[in-house]
Amino acid sequence: MSTPISSTSGVEQVLVDNGPLQAQLLTAVDDDHGGVIVDLKEPMNSHDFTSSLKASMLNWRQQGKKGVWIKLPIELVNLVEAAVKEGFWYHHAEPKYLMLVYWIPVTGNTVPANATHRVAIGAFVMNDKREVLVVQEKSGKFRGTGLWKFPTGVVDEGEDICKGAMREVKEETGIDTEFVEVLAFRQSHKSFFDKSDLFFVCMLRPLSFDIQKQELEIEAAEWMPIEVYAAQPFVQSHGLLKYIIDVGLAKVDKGYAGFSPVPTTSTFSNEKSFLYLNSQDLDK
Amino acid sequence: MSTPISSTSGVEQVLVDNGPLQAQLLTAVDDDHGGVIVDLKEPMNSHDFTSSLKASMLNWRQQGKKGVWIKLPIELVNLVEAAVKEGFWYHHAEPKYLMLVYWIPVTGNTVPANATHRVAIGAFVMNDKREVLVVQEKSGKFRGTGLWKFPTGVVDEGEDICKGAMREVKEETGIDTEFVEVLAFRQSHKSFFDKSDLFFVCMLRPLSFDIQKQELEIEAAEWMPIEVYAAQPFVQSHGLLKYIIDVGLAKVDKGYAGFSPVPTTSTFSNEKSFLYLNSQDLDK
Repeated sequence: MSTPISSTSGVEQVLVDNGPLQAQLLTAVDDDHGGVIVDLKEPMNSHDFTSSLKASMLNWRQQGKKGVWIKLPIELVNLVEAAVKEGFWYHHAEPKYLMLVYWIPVTGNTVPANATHRVAIGAFVMNDKREVLVVQEKSGKFRGTGLWKFPTGVVDEGEDICKGAMREVKEETGIDTEFVEVLAFRQSHKSFFDKSDLFFVCMLRPLSFDIQKQELEIEAAEWMPIEVYAAQPFVQSHGLLKYIIDVGLAKVDKGYAGFSPVPTTSTFSNEKSFLYLNSQDLDK
Repeated sequence: MSTPISSTSGVEQVLVDNGPLQAQLLTAVDDDHGGVIVDLKEPMNSHDFTSSLKASMLNWRQQGKKGVWIKLPIELVNLVEAAVKEGFWYHHAEPKYLMLVYWIPVTGNTVPANATHRVAIGAFVMNDKREVLVVQEKSGKFRGTGLWKFPTGVVDEGEDICKGAMREVKEETGIDTEFVEVLAFRQSHKSFFDKSDLFFVCMLRPLSFDIQKQELEIEAAEWMPIEVYAAQPFVQSHGLLKYIIDVGLAKVDKGYAGFSPVPTTSTFSNEKSFLYLNSQDLDK
């Protein structure tokens, strides 16, 4: 009836359960942690997929594999339900794919957590006249409130914090800057679909001064005396915003040392990455 | 034939397309950005869901809604394919649910990015004899290499960095600590399913000294003279690991100022969150 693809009785059992179709084993590569990764790309019907998955799972079980990962591009959405019916659960998703996972051993699930944080920056940019670069936003919580705020934004996927800060300032105001330091950072929770935020307060030195605001998001942008900015009731009533002024002025006036980026190579690859530290104190 | 749920021809059109069944509009709540969120909880067959989704989309379109979010618990995996067929794509997933999204306007997609970073800590814990707390791991890249490393770990979802550092040290070694400072942090990319890492080097003060290692992950743990730790070839050859020694000793010996956590309230809620800053310089 069925054509076993392996001589183990476990696989034959599966083939009988699934009728006369031959179950092809899914192609998988080993990961670094005793598991396997299936990166499906070709269309497949869900019945064949179920048969192949059952047979493959038996195979991996016999091999002592631990975590099993299945990456399904959104075009193969027809296979999601089948994978979940076999006991897989969601690990993470990006717009174009869904990653499912299964843990074979009975104990010791060490499936790593999904990404948990979004990274945002706020930019403290002051010119020689002690004016700070501020904007009014067209949308979001502050729309129409008249509140002047420092430029802020979310760091893109794969973008360095220092570069993201310079990009956001340039995009919102047209001002070119040089990154100086991270003055402080705040971690907050449940800010976004139950995810957490890391908000880095960045000091940047302006390299140009002629403002050209972005039309889509920014209602107004200007250089504002820091006392005028600080006097806004909203700023006065919010701890974080007051601290940003404190650390910014401490940097400008009192030699406050933040964390500056030092390029290093990663531990495991030759990719350059930035280590942020108090280089002022380290060099003394 | 069909029973319109609204007098608009658009909805009738949908009902005709889907046969004689009456399409119930999906229950949705408004979000803060001109969109709607559907939080499905009750089982539904995919045909009814498709009809309801088509009718609801017309309705939201007429109302000028922007982003449409559908949160599907994994038990409703049977509806994923139907949503994708209507043009939805994946936004993010957690083990027990999948979030899908659709952007109605023709231009200006401002659907926010998913979480992009995992947050990890490395713990620099030194006693009065200038011995640092080090471990050998049972699994991972360093298994069997004999490498002694500082305790490291991933911060849990919703966990503060300072608390995560204390927890990891306690779990791996049994040592109680008090959090002192973030000495440095590194951002690296493509470290984990194309996600980024933020690795915080944390100084902690030991409050107990009797090591009780965790059996599952830790092969060995001990207090080791820092010179012995530093002399390991792997440590000598890796920029980040050398920097960790440099900033740790600069803290202990030279008054290096890292970022210490200050409790603040969040801008938008009364949740306590930690702002990390150079309080030594700010207070001077």
